[in-house]
Amino acid sequence: MIQPLVPRLAIIGAGLIGSSLARAAREKHLAGTLVVADADPAVCERVRQLGFADMVTVDAAEAAEGSDIVVVAVPVGASGKVAEVVGPRLKPGAILSDVGSVKGFVVEAMAPHVPAHAHLIPAHPVAGTEFSGPDAGFATLFENRWCIVTPPEGAAPEAVARIVALWRAAGANVETMSAQHHDLVLAITSHVPHLIAYNIVGTAAHLEETLTSEVIKFSAGGFRDFTRIASSDPTMWRDVFLTNREAVLEMLGRFTEDLTALQRAIRYGDGDALFEHFARTRAIRRSIIEQGQETAAPDFGRRAAEKPKHEDS
Amino acid sequence: MIQPLVPRLAIIGAGLIGSSLARAAREKHLAGTLVVADADPAVCERVRQLGFADMVTVDAAEAAEGSDIVVVAVPVGASGKVAEVVGPRLKPGAILSDVGSVKGFVVEAMAPHVPAHAHLIPAHPVAGTEFSGPDAGFATLFENRWCIVTPPEGAAPEAVARIVALWRAAGANVETMSAQHHDLVLAITSHVPHLIAYNIVGTAAHLEETLTSEVIKFSAGGFRDFTRIASSDPTMWRDVFLTNREAVLEMLGRFTEDLTALQRAIRYGDGDALFEHFARTRAIRRSIIEQGQETAAPDFGRRAAEKPKHEDS
Ligand SMILES: NC(=O)c1ccc[n+]([C@@H]2O[C@H](COP(=O)([O-])OP(=O)(O)OC[C@H]3O[C@@H](n4cnc5c(N)ncnc54)[C@H](OP(=O)(O)O)[C@@H]3O)[C@@H](O)[C@H]2O)c1
Ligand SMILES: NC(=O)c1ccc[n+]([C@@H]2O[C@H](COP(=O)([O-])OP(=O)(O)OC[C@H]3O[C@@H](n4cnc5c(N)ncnc54)[C@H](OP(=O)(O)O)[C@@H]3O)[C@@H](O)[C@H]2O)c1
Repeated sequence: MIQPLVPRLAIIGAGLIGSSLARAAREKHLAGTLVVADADPAVCERVRQLGFADMVTVDAAEAAEGSDIVVVAVPVGASGKVAEVVGPRLKPGAILSDVGSVKGFVVEAMAPHVPAHAHLIPAHPVAGTEFSGPDAGFATLFENRWCIVTPPEGAAPEAVARIVALWRAAGANVETMSAQHHDLVLAITSHVPHLIAYNIVGTAAHLEETLTSEVIKFSAGGFRDFTRIASSDPTMWRDVFLTNREAVLEMLGRFTEDLTALQRAIRYGDGDALFEHFARTRAIRRSIIEQGQETAAPDFGRRAAEKPKHEDS
Repeated sequence: MIQPLVPRLAIIGAGLIGSSLARAAREKHLAGTLVVADADPAVCERVRQLGFADMVTVDAAEAAEGSDIVVVAVPVGASGKVAEVVGPRLKPGAILSDVGSVKGFVVEAMAPHVPAHAHLIPAHPVAGTEFSGPDAGFATLFENRWCIVTPPEGAAPEAVARIVALWRAAGANVETMSAQHHDLVLAITSHVPHLIAYNIVGTAAHLEETLTSEVIKFSAGGFRDFTRIASSDPTMWRDVFLTNREAVLEMLGRFTEDLTALQRAIRYGDGDALFEHFARTRAIRRSIIEQGQETAAPDFGRRAAEKPKHEDS
């Protein structure tokens, strides 16, 4: 029999990301033993029903005990607490990792709890959907998506290599960078986009009631595109904004400056400035599609997924 | 033989919207004769090849001559010019209509050219994709989408009824309202969303070059959702912002106020305010899905549409 990539793999937190990693590990036989822990007994029960783990427990410490790799997949704000519980149980040579959307904070919160005989190698798979919980996960979530690994200074190369290998085996492409750089890049590729999506949906919700119902009705004009990411998990996103404050405020500042310029162009009827701006942004989408990170199908290919309901008014 | 809904239908402008209406009319036998005009000879040639019109011409006046309904489907800024050419050729009882994304301006621009013996009944199908031109159109574009008809005060009810019937026959649900109200509702459901999408993609494009390439790479974190509508036609959108200035500035002001509040919550670490905001916006998406205006599939159902390309790094 071939030796599995990870003799004993523990995943703490069985939500969208944790359960997707567990499913991928199960399907691709990446772990000799796959242990899943979740603080919520109901989630544990559901994981047992779904059957993608060898062992399920509410006790993160028990899951970590004897594991070669422990992946923490809980909201960023809870990662320090989990590390506190898990750290003392890590065996010599074990690797503690995570999947959090913010990396600088996670290192600060987790590192103090990692014993000298173990390794902390944080990671962030840049893949997800607007759903959460163990039922939302699926084994192919990471296929052809990027996973960013942020080894702390002086990290053991062989430990980094094992985390890189795990994510490659789960289907992802892997990039390494510093936690600080990660947090800046993600502020503009993910955190600020989520913030402005949450914001415009909020603005619409604050309108007079009749207007809000019209926003829902006529949302196919563009608005509905924003509602997808604005329906993501509130706990996860609260934690992201609380823990990546600096980089988010920096990128938000740039966004607002640029928006002010567009607003002026509208106010003063500067059609050339508007045209020039609108013509430049197409190239970015083209590159994203060329790099296989987006579909070229019109409307995200929504029509294939939709089941049209006919209603007459 | 059953009498077609429109004995002679002319469509001026054979882009995404014009060619979609022409295709729907053709498939559903809505017109006795279907005439398509476009100012661009290359577009006319392509329409001939695609074969969805009975007659194709560069001359809008010729197309209008003898037509029962003339639908102008050009960028909003060009609608006055087209009305000037077409107006004098309208036969008694003919209806001039349009599909423009702004209605107040269109009425102002077109009305002076409509003779007393004809009717001006503007309309706006709230449906589209990020593509343009005659190849982008398809017959089912308007299925289960809304079309807003904005009859000017004192419009003849039978003329309004004919335009409503045309859009219903093309698959749309129809709502009528004033041009002014339309422009306010669309500012928040479509125009401001497009503006902020164009803006965030612009902000990303302005970053240092290496950062921009990372934005493209890691766009699956949320950013790519915005690039779809930010790749829409620059001419069309320039015209929208130039012609719906008041309502756009009003809604943009509300958006910015709300964003400032979120920014403060981030700066001062007010997790409760963030959570509360993020938890409220989900209901809006749920309503949009319930009303059949959006798919419930995760990630817009992108995975079904995607053809994953594997690249290793
Ligand atoms: N969603 C995305 O698109 C995405 C993408 C990339 C990375 N991430 C990151 O992945 C992490 C998890 O996100 P997710 O979307 O998978 O979240 P999720 O679906 O909400 O799942 C999180 C799970 O962790 C459990 N949990 C919370 N605190 C815990 C603790 N102290 N000990 C053990 N389990 C605990 C939660 O249980 P309860 O039900 O009791 O809360 C829940 O079952 C976050 O750090 C997020 O930043 C998310
Ligand atoms: N795209 C959407 O999502 C959407 C949705 C609802 C409503 N609308 C509205 O629909 C209208 C058309 O948009 P579209 O997306 O169909 O645009 P499009 O694909 O760019 O097509 C517009 C067509 O009109 C032609 N044209 C321009 N000026 C003309 C003139 N003076 N006489 C005759 N033809 C002329 C253009 O030819 P050239 O190639 O020479 O420019 C082009 O072929 C706009 O008013 C827009 O606001 C658009």
